[in-house]
Amino acid sequence: MQTLNVGLAERSYPIFIGNGLLSANELFLPYLTAKRAVIVSNTTVAPLYLEQLRTNLENCGVRCDTIVLPDGEEFKNTASMDTIYDALLRSRCERTTTLIALGGGVVGDMVGFAAATYLRGVPFVQIPTTLLAQVDSSVGGKTGINHPLGKNMIGAFYQPQMVLADTRTLDTLPDRELSAGISEVIKYGLIRDLPFLEWLEQNMERLLARDTEALQYAIARSCQNKAEVVGNDERESGERALLNLGHTFGHAIENGMGYGVWLHGEAVAAGTMMAADLSRRMGWLSEPDVERIRDMFLRAKLPVSGPRMAVERYQELMGLDKKVASGKIRFVLLKTLGEAVMTADVPEVFLRETLEACCD
Amino acid sequence: MQTLNVGLAERSYPIFIGNGLLSANELFLPYLTAKRAVIVSNTTVAPLYLEQLRTNLENCGVRCDTIVLPDGEEFKNTASMDTIYDALLRSRCERTTTLIALGGGVVGDMVGFAAATYLRGVPFVQIPTTLLAQVDSSVGGKTGINHPLGKNMIGAFYQPQMVLADTRTLDTLPDRELSAGISEVIKYGLIRDLPFLEWLEQNMERLLARDTEALQYAIARSCQNKAEVVGNDERESGERALLNLGHTFGHAIENGMGYGVWLHGEAVAAGTMMAADLSRRMGWLSEPDVERIRDMFLRAKLPVSGPRMAVERYQELMGLDKKVASGKIRFVLLKTLGEAVMTADVPEVFLRETLEACCD
Repeated sequence: MQTLNVGLAERSYPIFIGNGLLSANELFLPYLTAKRAVIVSNTTVAPLYLEQLRTNLENCGVRCDTIVLPDGEEFKNTASMDTIYDALLRSRCERTTTLIALGGGVVGDMVGFAAATYLRGVPFVQIPTTLLAQVDSSVGGKTGINHPLGKNMIGAFYQPQMVLADTRTLDTLPDRELSAGISEVIKYGLIRDLPFLEWLEQNMERLLARDTEALQYAIARSCQNKAEVVGNDERESGERALLNLGHTFGHAIENGMGYGVWLHGEAVAAGTMMAADLSRRMGWLSEPDVERIRDMFLRAKLPVSGPRMAVERYQELMGLDKKVASGKIRFVLLKTLGEAVMTADVPEVFLRETLEACCD
Repeated sequence: MQTLNVGLAERSYPIFIGNGLLSANELFLPYLTAKRAVIVSNTTVAPLYLEQLRTNLENCGVRCDTIVLPDGEEFKNTASMDTIYDALLRSRCERTTTLIALGGGVVGDMVGFAAATYLRGVPFVQIPTTLLAQVDSSVGGKTGINHPLGKNMIGAFYQPQMVLADTRTLDTLPDRELSAGISEVIKYGLIRDLPFLEWLEQNMERLLARDTEALQYAIARSCQNKAEVVGNDERESGERALLNLGHTFGHAIENGMGYGVWLHGEAVAAGTMMAADLSRRMGWLSEPDVERIRDMFLRAKLPVSGPRMAVERYQELMGLDKKVASGKIRFVLLKTLGEAVMTADVPEVFLRETLEACCD
């Protein structure tokens, strides 16, 4: 087992990464002193892991209620939040009741937002069961839901009490979801960790084969990168925005195609290729750099171009991005491999060329 | 004009209290550096003050959008939140856009919650236009909405950039709402400021006659009390809960009768009489103490008993209170006039006697 720390003064918390941690009650119990928890999961994950977790905790004297939500990004909305709130109120959960998110990024984002807002804030624990959630969304306290007009538009910064990544849960992860998670792993290499990018190039097949050691290394190194960035800039006033490489394009794809049609990690892969293409047009990346990124995504079985939508539609959707300032879209681009920058100074013609070049 | 400060380290903010401050653009502009604001009001207050505020700000170069919500506690719900979110997204409000709450406690609580959650947090300013909002709800960062199962159950602690109380807006306040506000003013005297309680006994008629000097004094002294408590205990882990004198009973009345039937301040007055009666049964207040409190509320034209509901219904509704811990209702009671305590050790028989004695 590896232990990392997200350093945020009185809001600091540990990340535990290891095989079989779902049964490691000694990790949970310090956070469940009120002996009351609500496990929130989805219809895919619950049949696999919910009973095991509940039984473990109940054997330790923790009263556990459960909530099972429909699975998918298209359910990350106010209706699901109401389901959670109703259940919490009906079972009279109190300010000391801990919410436990057992599932992927959608479950984690919604449970985090419920924890931030139920009774104006209750403790919560993240147990991410997808690679994407283990390497990215469960760490850093971004919580929220989608709105028909934009992804993650309603939410809060609210940190968990701990993150517990049980790599054994990846055994049941569909291949498509594994690849989607690798998309965010590659991101860390591209924006701030060139040695990790090189390691990924050498070890991609091990990751796809679910080699335990390789997965644990990739998860821990990703979390370490994320923890450093979040520790420096919790509320995204600067550096943290660089974690959104590929996300401005990616959110436009997810929203434009309808939530749930593209997986988040798939949209980020295509979006990152657009950001790379735009970075090349800005004179920052070379053609071989872009090819190197494309090769990585292709080897990870990820899309390297976006769906066909009108350039104007892309621009309209990107205009809803949370990073828009004074009406201008701000892009996260690559100065070079391993170094990202944010800029609003992108010539309109370059953007148009990228959108035309990088869509099927 | 008087200026107070809510001391919360990097989240500290000023409270300005004075006559005609709605036109005091020099107070606003330091908080509107991005030159973009959305004023949210309701159908009662908007016709009176919205255009004046908007024109003032636009003359200073601030782009102002407006949102007008239906008026009343019964609209403090997710539907109104969706109205706000939709409007913010449609007009492409950004992370630097400031939300301005122009109205009473309902508007302030909802706009604060919208500010806490739109794009995971944008700045907001409170301009309370009722006495209740000026002395209580606009200060301290409690934001949120009601749920069919309980009042203020969904929300966040989120502090405004500033609070601006223009006492001139009280000129148009209905008498019933003025009295409701006085209910929370009396509260500060009862829980922690005996000299203020005595001042209120001597000046109640001046307040009811809307004497400007008396109102300003009562507002400033109330805000000073609130600011001290919030500065000590922002997230209500201790002392702040004492501000909820009368609120456990009061929320049960509001919820049980249907949101909007009783004004919040009216329910708090009746609830405070119940708390006083219970405090007497506990052996803490004397009969004359209770009579003294009753006289105050009667002079303020406030109810001194709750509506007739079954004792079991009261208990059921109170069991939904946010202060419930380990299944036990925690009551804010009075040890003596000017000193409140929180306790879960109330004999069941006393509670039953109080509920039977204090309902019409």
